[in-house]
Amino acid sequence: MNDKKDSRIYSGATPSEIEEDLLPLLDFEAKKLTLKELSKIINQRLIPHLMNYNNPHFISMYNLLPDNGGKFGAEISLEYNQGVTAWEVSPGGVVLEELCCQALCRLFNLSSEADATFMYCGTYSNQSALYLALHWTAEKKYGFDFGKHGLKGFPDLNRLVAVTSTDAHLSLKHAIRVLGLGEESIITVPVDKNHHMDIEALKETLTRLKDEKDIFCVIATAGTTSTGSIDPVLPIATLCNKLNIWCHVDGAYGLSYYLVPEKKPLFNGIELVDSITWDPHKTLGVVIPNSLLFLKRKDDFRRHSIFGDYFNREEDLEPNPGLKSPPTTRPLSALPLVTSIRYTGIDGLRKRLNDNLITIQTVYNELKKDDEIEVCHKPELGVLCIRIIPKNIPKSHLDQLQRFIFEEIKHEGKFSISTTKIDNKAVIRLVVLNEAVNVKSILETIQHIKRIATHYSI
Amino acid sequence: MNDKKDSRIYSGATPSEIEEDLLPLLDFEAKKLTLKELSKIINQRLIPHLMNYNNPHFISMYNLLPDNGGKFGAEISLEYNQGVTAWEVSPGGVVLEELCCQALCRLFNLSSEADATFMYCGTYSNQSALYLALHWTAEKKYGFDFGKHGLKGFPDLNRLVAVTSTDAHLSLKHAIRVLGLGEESIITVPVDKNHHMDIEALKETLTRLKDEKDIFCVIATAGTTSTGSIDPVLPIATLCNKLNIWCHVDGAYGLSYYLVPEKKPLFNGIELVDSITWDPHKTLGVVIPNSLLFLKRKDDFRRHSIFGDYFNREEDLEPNPGLKSPPTTRPLSALPLVTSIRYTGIDGLRKRLNDNLITIQTVYNELKKDDEIEVCHKPELGVLCIRIIPKNIPKSHLDQLQRFIFEEIKHEGKFSISTTKIDNKAVIRLVVLNEAVNVKSILETIQHIKRIATHYSI
Repeated sequence: MNDKKDSRIYSGATPSEIEEDLLPLLDFEAKKLTLKELSKIINQRLIPHLMNYNNPHFISMYNLLPDNGGKFGAEISLEYNQGVTAWEVSPGGVVLEELCCQALCRLFNLSSEADATFMYCGTYSNQSALYLALHWTAEKKYGFDFGKHGLKGFPDLNRLVAVTSTDAHLSLKHAIRVLGLGEESIITVPVDKNHHMDIEALKETLTRLKDEKDIFCVIATAGTTSTGSIDPVLPIATLCNKLNIWCHVDGAYGLSYYLVPEKKPLFNGIELVDSITWDPHKTLGVVIPNSLLFLKRKDDFRRHSIFGDYFNREEDLEPNPGLKSPPTTRPLSALPLVTSIRYTGIDGLRKRLNDNLITIQTVYNELKKDDEIEVCHKPELGVLCIRIIPKNIPKSHLDQLQRFIFEEIKHEGKFSISTTKIDNKAVIRLVVLNEAVNVKSILETIQHIKRIATHYSI
Repeated sequence: MNDKKDSRIYSGATPSEIEEDLLPLLDFEAKKLTLKELSKIINQRLIPHLMNYNNPHFISMYNLLPDNGGKFGAEISLEYNQGVTAWEVSPGGVVLEELCCQALCRLFNLSSEADATFMYCGTYSNQSALYLALHWTAEKKYGFDFGKHGLKGFPDLNRLVAVTSTDAHLSLKHAIRVLGLGEESIITVPVDKNHHMDIEALKETLTRLKDEKDIFCVIATAGTTSTGSIDPVLPIATLCNKLNIWCHVDGAYGLSYYLVPEKKPLFNGIELVDSITWDPHKTLGVVIPNSLLFLKRKDDFRRHSIFGDYFNREEDLEPNPGLKSPPTTRPLSALPLVTSIRYTGIDGLRKRLNDNLITIQTVYNELKKDDEIEVCHKPELGVLCIRIIPKNIPKSHLDQLQRFIFEEIKHEGKFSISTTKIDNKAVIRLVVLNEAVNVKSILETIQHIKRIATHYSI
């Protein structure tokens, strides 16, 4: 059993140690437990092994604890456990979700023709966006019903491709696989030195592929996973509109920062794109799952609609949000989002998001001065990738060093950083989301990283 | 503002009345609200419009309130908000999920080679099952990598079909659409008089299509949406195994009843099928989302694996459940499921599930005696479809009558029934899940239905 101190970010236990702790919980045929007994087991044997996202040293991933407002709404959602895909299962939940979607469209200044649906997560939002793009392309360019005929309605499957940048999220790979196109149907264009999709390269690609391929979707990322970079939405959307190509923005992480006035110009053109993914559960104080898919034209949702006999009937007069997305069951995610925003207030939310940006910018300025650290990019949002480059370590060992640091920190359970690759080099990634993180706590982590680096032996 | 009594199943308000009530919550630019203010608004303006699943007259849909055990676990999941797709975001959550999946495989007597993953809902579980079936078929029968090449690797897309019964759930339509095959790639076989897939018809179909089509999946339903019927799993699985076709069981609603000894024989053969969908959020006392996908061979999950640079890396030594399903973010659904089962105890759970069955069987026996009611099938699980057939209403009006009753009840907000179609005839569907429902409360609903029927004018 784990008895390490609470200040830890998690127990630091190994998978087999945790397994040993948890096994008594998993004997489903054993006699039943009271809440008191369950509470004791969980407090002693599970909680120490959970990751403490509220620790000032948790700067690794897009995870947050709910804020007071989000928690309040989530508790009500939990208590009433409303499904919200059909009026019959939750009249109030359904109307709240619809109103919330409309209010969010206004918050992001989308047109009055826009609409949104709640989804489970960015992966499924992106999948739906690509599905709708394919369906729309089939109808508009080839005049057939994709829902009925599928891909075989297209004259040549080898021609169908989606275009995105090399820094796009791996969920697009899941989407293109599930859609039956295969990963080879994603064409990537390079990024510039600050990791934005290179617009000249995109233009060149679109021109080059004009006769050879049917591009059914161009995906821009607003807040990439590795560097938080926002692709130039306006020129991408303008190009797509000109060429009549569906333009999707994956703003799962980044879209929240549209609300920060200084960052808003980076999202110029967002009102021109066909679809947008946004995951409030990544950046706002709401519980998982909380994700949305926005569409520029609400009518495009009909390509997701499958009418049923037992619910979501064509003749129903009341709103049925289940007609806008695949799931038959979805929880009332709108409520915690509404209570989080209303409790924090939009100004409070702007400040909280802006604080992330100031913190990371300050750390960036600080680390630039350190000649044992390479800062890999200028931070655009709350993410910064760095490389530890001690003078005594040869260049050929630097990838191994970053990985060594990451593994050591993971096993200690005191700090939490992440690692990724940029331009095929291993880097350490710092993410600022939670309010407990500050410049001091990040610099403490950096100091610790540098100490660990001294233990690396070639 | 709504001030109707609490005994109602919901306020009975119209969409526009609810909209009016909720609008004050949705002004995101307005000044922030305290928890007290939020609480007041929500209690007065939202709660009355939510559906009360715990009302003895809620007998319409597969929705439940969490039980004390499930609520306890959900509160902890809420507080810690753990993502569980990667070790780094929740060491304890990840191990709990893995152990829970293994324990559930044992509970359903699946082989030691079986494994499971948590999903968001049955729709996505079914989608994943069909995706894995396609991927497996591509690899085993055609020797190519579906994830890379997609459907174009198959010699002839027109040949690819999935086979299921006419009573299968509409989520299969979503799945086949998203997979790029189009709805015309689902071939349905008829059901017998108790709404089981007709095994002779299936045999005939498989023989007939042997040379003409490539059947990549046969989907049996264990607990259909309309009648709760369990397709004959053993003969279907045996046929599929013989013909080397992936067999999927959609047990989203029904699989729970495997735990009731009297019903277990109906699930014979479940250990032979390649994949199973189960939604604990439909029948157990756990909050939405709580769904699982079981696979007979854990190795088959690798066809869902996409390795990343920033998480779920190929070289990671710790468990990463995100490699078993598409989502990058998923909540700790395992915890409320574990606490619900352990608090209720497996015997308590068996009793609770069996009580549903006894209640519906008693109602069935009662209604059979009523010559103004047609019982449409012998209930196998906790669902019963009936038709109100008053003597004075001509047959040609009976569909309209059922719909009239459904609409009237929906608007009153005192009772809750559902409607669907069986053999293309409109019926009223009764679902027994929550413990507050009993024979008396169902018969009260029936009495009320009959009163409403007298108001129907031809």
